[in-house]
Amino acid sequence: MTTVACAQLELAVGDAAGNRAAAEEAVAEAAAAGAQVVVLPELANSGYVFADAAEAAALAEPVDGPAVTAWSAAARRHGVTLVAGLCERDADGRVRNSAVLIDPSGELRARYRKAHLFGTEAEFFVPGDERPPVVEVPSVGRIGVMVCYDLEFPEWVRLAALAGTELLCAPVNWPRFPRPDGERPGEVVRVQADAAVNRLYVAACDRAGEERGTAWTGGSVIVDPDGFPLAGHRPTEGPTLLLAECDPARARDKRLGDHNDVFGDRRPELYEP
Amino acid sequence: MTTVACAQLELAVGDAAGNRAAAEEAVAEAAAAGAQVVVLPELANSGYVFADAAEAAALAEPVDGPAVTAWSAAARRHGVTLVAGLCERDADGRVRNSAVLIDPSGELRARYRKAHLFGTEAEFFVPGDERPPVVEVPSVGRIGVMVCYDLEFPEWVRLAALAGTELLCAPVNWPRFPRPDGERPGEVVRVQADAAVNRLYVAACDRAGEERGTAWTGGSVIVDPDGFPLAGHRPTEGPTLLLAECDPARARDKRLGDHNDVFGDRRPELYEP
Repeated sequence: MTTVACAQLELAVGDAAGNRAAAEEAVAEAAAAGAQVVVLPELANSGYVFADAAEAAALAEPVDGPAVTAWSAAARRHGVTLVAGLCERDADGRVRNSAVLIDPSGELRARYRKAHLFGTEAEFFVPGDERPPVVEVPSVGRIGVMVCYDLEFPEWVRLAALAGTELLCAPVNWPRFPRPDGERPGEVVRVQADAAVNRLYVAACDRAGEERGTAWTGGSVIVDPDGFPLAGHRPTEGPTLLLAECDPARARDKRLGDHNDVFGDRRPELYEP
Repeated sequence: MTTVACAQLELAVGDAAGNRAAAEEAVAEAAAAGAQVVVLPELANSGYVFADAAEAAALAEPVDGPAVTAWSAAARRHGVTLVAGLCERDADGRVRNSAVLIDPSGELRARYRKAHLFGTEAEFFVPGDERPPVVEVPSVGRIGVMVCYDLEFPEWVRLAALAGTELLCAPVNWPRFPRPDGERPGEVVRVQADAAVNRLYVAACDRAGEERGTAWTGGSVIVDPDGFPLAGHRPTEGPTLLLAECDPARARDKRLGDHNDVFGDRRPELYEP
């Protein structure tokens, strides 16, 4: 079994040092609680609600910058796999809404750039055009990575699933939208469906608190291959640490009952555009 | 606005006359309550739990057989659009798990054959290999049709959505599976996601009761383009009539807030296998 954590943090836009400290503290706390995989929110180095493109650019860091360096040290120190959202400056100086996967040795194993931009993000970011990475981490499992709004495109989740993802880790920042009384956030429902139709685990780590007038949903959730939450059954608007036991072997088995297989039952020849 | 009904019926395997009578009564009741569109369960002529392939074949009917003839008369008499699941015998004598759409004039406008077979269905049915139809019904909207397990393939729902579906009508027979306390049936969660990621309405009509030891979920639900239930918030194991007001114009608008569009934000060039 693999213990997976989502560290739903309250971050501060522009406070790079404070955000690094919050991440380091969260990783230490999660590791102390037994976590082997820790997911942090989207844009965990920078915060999300930028005043303008210049601010986003100023906060962006390369993947060998202070945030990833600090996260890598924390992953190594605590022996965890870390997935975190990064406001990235790429080699050409473009700003990307990225996520990194760092293994327990501290090695950067994957850098993914969000392909589906939400809200005003196109003012700040250049979208990615590479598929979600899938990284095998020994004694943990095969981890896929994507970011927030990517989860709302079932085609994208399917690609990650078909590429072997057992645990899909997604840094997210879900702005709080109105919803009917008694309903879960729609984003959580979509994550449940993503998990079930692909029979894999999903750990989506949301933000806590508010930022420049934007309130976050606090909807972090860890979902099992049946699509039911293992942790995060209801939003918690403050910071919180979710923990769940996941069995990657369960996500390698795509059978559904005695007669079905969620991959084998696909009719790809009929899906072509 | 279009008033949509799901008539969650208790049917009896093999009792073709009784099942026709139940359907006629349900259409009358739904129409009296104001319904313009009525959805019936999967295999509404035959029942679902066949003893063997010979029984399924004996209960199968062509689309000009007694069931569709009776449904057509009921649709015309009450001025409703009817979508119902049909155990169909095709022109080559093969048995199909189909659905028909009959308009308020009584005309058969579409016949769809389930493309994704569930459980032991492959022992009884030949799967379809045509895409879900989308039918424009004047003053009602553009109705897409698929059957039960088809809904669990987001590629399939996306095709129906991209083809212009505003209201996706799905006859289903959801066998009752265990679920954690307080959780909705997974099938309902998946329908909610289907609706939200495509910003369309979904009306899924389930069965009531039990059949030869198989208990049905009774999870009929009508979901809006935000993915929230308009009716059928929790399963009702007995027969029930769900009604909801749907605004097809809402489902023609794929915008999500001021900056997004759930179709326009797709990256189809990245999705190719």
